[in-house]
Amino acid sequence: MGGVNTVERGPKQDRSRATRQRLLEAAVACLAEHGWAGSTVSVVAEHAGVSRGAAQHHFPTREDLFTAAVEYVAEERSTALRALFPEGTADRRAVVAALVDLYTGPLFRAALHLWVAACDEDRLRPRVTELEARVGRETHRIAVELLGADESRPGVRETVQGLLDLARGLGLAHLLTDDGARRERVVAQWATLVAEALD
Amino acid sequence: MGGVNTVERGPKQDRSRATRQRLLEAAVACLAEHGWAGSTVSVVAEHAGVSRGAAQHHFPTREDLFTAAVEYVAEERSTALRALFPEGTADRRAVVAALVDLYTGPLFRAALHLWVAACDEDRLRPRVTELEARVGRETHRIAVELLGADESRPGVRETVQGLLDLARGLGLAHLLTDDGARRERVVAQWATLVAEALD
Repeated sequence: MGGVNTVERGPKQDRSRATRQRLLEAAVACLAEHGWAGSTVSVVAEHAGVSRGAAQHHFPTREDLFTAAVEYVAEERSTALRALFPEGTADRRAVVAALVDLYTGPLFRAALHLWVAACDEDRLRPRVTELEARVGRETHRIAVELLGADESRPGVRETVQGLLDLARGLGLAHLLTDDGARRERVVAQWATLVAEALD
Repeated sequence: MGGVNTVERGPKQDRSRATRQRLLEAAVACLAEHGWAGSTVSVVAEHAGVSRGAAQHHFPTREDLFTAAVEYVAEERSTALRALFPEGTADRRAVVAALVDLYTGPLFRAALHLWVAACDEDRLRPRVTELEARVGRETHRIAVELLGADESRPGVRETVQGLLDLARGLGLAHLLTDDGARRERVVAQWATLVAEALD
């Protein structure tokens, strides 16, 4: 009996996981494109080709769906970032450029909409604050590792933190205008400053 | 007759200017507190103690009011920043700290709400993009002046630009949590790195 159950449950769970994943990806795309006001569970369900009931089975509330979505995509991005530098520590200029890239895509855009919405929505704020702290710690950990930064030395921790703040600020500047050319020059110069500070 | 007109117009113009100013200040406070969705001309007029008709006389559309408000407060902040350092060039660490402070108050919060709203609103986007470029250039000009930065030297322009991006990123981090203690440490470290880069 157990065997039959396992066989039957396998594909069902796979389907369930695939549905969940489609919802999460659609939620981030929707947030990035339409902002918080235009992002409801129904809109995302339709976008993902999933029934509203199935969407609500996975994510009972709008807050559940969108915080899970931003977390899921952030984890995907972290995995992709580590995969770019399989040896761990890598050329610091390349690492700085890859870190900044984390903040110029749809994930950052989606996260930004969520942050700003969280300012005004009491149900959203504590969850986004907690999520942001968790994602921020993980990004910091990866940055330290890939930059080969020795945080026991004074100033190194703050150098890495400031680099991630810079990346966030560059992402914000990118929101309304494509300032890729300017960003590249700033990143080149600041990569040099960071590399010198970490040496 | 000319004399009578002048006498009569004086106080009227003063009142009109004072009304305009009250509306602009109320608009920024409202945006910072309630976001774009909660910020209408009516809400701001009530907040400023001005009739809706008078508000619409000054600012025919919502876009007019809020872009004018962010610009007005940005100019006030620039003036205040220059007044902090009356001699022009000043101690670079103090200048870096003052620049970062520009991005952690209600003006930045209001501007951020306006930027994010502009992503989704076609009528708002070109005006906010243009406003942001203008305010950005002015802030850069002040930063170069107060830091005594020689932009003819390679990398200096990008160092100053990156510093303002860093400040913007720190402002964004401040949005949901009061991370003043962390910010102070990051600013201290990066003020040193920027000062070295400019020397």
